[in-house]
Amino acid sequence: MKIAVLGAGAMGGLYSAYLSRNNDVTVVDVYQALVDKINAEGLEVREPDGSSAIYHPHAATSTEGMESVDLIVVFVKAMFSESALNNNRGIIGPDTYIMTFQNGSGHEDTLGKFVDQEHIVIGTTQHNASVGGLGVTNHGGSGITHMGCVVGSASRLQHFADNFTSCGLEADVSDGVQKMIWNKMFTNVSASALTGALQVPLGYISSNEYAWAMCKQLIREAVDAAAGIGLEFDYDEKVAEVKAVCDNSPEGLTSIYADLKNGRRSEVDTISGSVVRAGQKGGVPTPSHAFLVQMIHAMEGRDKK
Amino acid sequence: MKIAVLGAGAMGGLYSAYLSRNNDVTVVDVYQALVDKINAEGLEVREPDGSSAIYHPHAATSTEGMESVDLIVVFVKAMFSESALNNNRGIIGPDTYIMTFQNGSGHEDTLGKFVDQEHIVIGTTQHNASVGGLGVTNHGGSGITHMGCVVGSASRLQHFADNFTSCGLEADVSDGVQKMIWNKMFTNVSASALTGALQVPLGYISSNEYAWAMCKQLIREAVDAAAGIGLEFDYDEKVAEVKAVCDNSPEGLTSIYADLKNGRRSEVDTISGSVVRAGQKGGVPTPSHAFLVQMIHAMEGRDKK
Repeated sequence: MKIAVLGAGAMGGLYSAYLSRNNDVTVVDVYQALVDKINAEGLEVREPDGSSAIYHPHAATSTEGMESVDLIVVFVKAMFSESALNNNRGIIGPDTYIMTFQNGSGHEDTLGKFVDQEHIVIGTTQHNASVGGLGVTNHGGSGITHMGCVVGSASRLQHFADNFTSCGLEADVSDGVQKMIWNKMFTNVSASALTGALQVPLGYISSNEYAWAMCKQLIREAVDAAAGIGLEFDYDEKVAEVKAVCDNSPEGLTSIYADLKNGRRSEVDTISGSVVRAGQKGGVPTPSHAFLVQMIHAMEGRDKK
Repeated sequence: MKIAVLGAGAMGGLYSAYLSRNNDVTVVDVYQALVDKINAEGLEVREPDGSSAIYHPHAATSTEGMESVDLIVVFVKAMFSESALNNNRGIIGPDTYIMTFQNGSGHEDTLGKFVDQEHIVIGTTQHNASVGGLGVTNHGGSGITHMGCVVGSASRLQHFADNFTSCGLEADVSDGVQKMIWNKMFTNVSASALTGALQVPLGYISSNEYAWAMCKQLIREAVDAAAGIGLEFDYDEKVAEVKAVCDNSPEGLTSIYADLKNGRRSEVDTISGSVVRAGQKGGVPTPSHAFLVQMIHAMEGRDKK
């Protein structure tokens, strides 16, 4: 299969490396030094067990002149999805599927600007990875990659799942993928978002009474927003799950915490923002999420601390 | 007139000093060293023109054994009003008035736990002052002290206004004092509260698009909450006023900014919190204020930066 992976960060690196086992993979990134390094020396994946392997996907800063691919997997930060797809329009043909496992919901709205609904694949991944250096991905943990579609039955995506599984990325297809995406999102839009706004570790959220009250309010609104678009979750169950995440990693620092601490743009629009947009679609008010999205944007503009 | 001023901070210092010109004033504070200094050497007020004078109100850490007074002026931080009044219950007689010019609205609810509605005086002051050292108040600027009541006509308070005026604290009475209190509050509950939450100077609020969007949302909810309890304000006018405050003091740092920076408890409950309570009374939702109050409390609990 001819596959383009957009974004050679930690997760893009992992997927392009693994997928290159059985596919013709091009990983696209704007970072020239990284592209050069991958083309010269390959992409190293360091596994949790201490082993390591080098993979050789093609790397490119531009897909100009390339023919269309069978599949594009979008692994840039979600706020750059649209510009990344725009810059690589040339490889999108009538039969090209675009797939995303990015955090947050509603990414199909962005992908839908480039392909029809039938060619959109959304899902979740349980893998996690971090950048270990130029051209080095540290593979932190594995799990299943769930794939689904926004129209029709997910069974028609089985060949993608089989392909991924054959490459060591265990995958399945599911018609309940929207619910899985949301299910994964509750911690991100409540406790994680607050660790950014408050600049505290995860444990602070469940141990400070005011932070925890805000966290529960964010979960409450997110559960209601999900219900508004037809996805039912149990509030008490979600509260217990989020609390467990905080309690189990009291010193845990989130990516949004680090983004804001370092004066970087965060992914808040595509994560918390997607709750606001779901609320608008379903006619459910989400004032705390709306306020928090703006607060985090306001924090992005400050001087570094 | 026999007057007790609760709190020997900047404003309490100023009012007790000035009122001691023509009254028997006792200023009450829990800070023993300050009380000793005032009793030994008096209270110094440094005026904006560079002049300075020493005043000699009595000072005390406790009013135990004192007889009841004609007037208590509450100048502690508003979150300590109730405990301060509780600690000095002995000087509250059947004819004692309790007066407050603290920032925020709804202080009559607290005063009403100690005297009947007829003996409550609320109002605003245009004076500002800061602490210049132990027993030293820097008088930053002057203006009118407006007094009003929560039941009946404010005209019955004229003798208080005359007394204050005779002491150099120009005062009047008004039946529109609730509106004056709210009028003064819009900047505090929008731009100032945000400078605390975001840890930025005032100019940031009007110049960062997200901070300004939040600020306008807070003004919107406050205008609506005020309308819910019968106080009409023009939203556009308030937005313009708050913007002018930010634009005119771009590097201005607020007291809530300093409180949160230094790990102190802020006055958010009695300022922003009073908008939430007014909203509840009038049946008007104020979700952004409610969220911000909790966020600021959550910030109070963090380690100092």
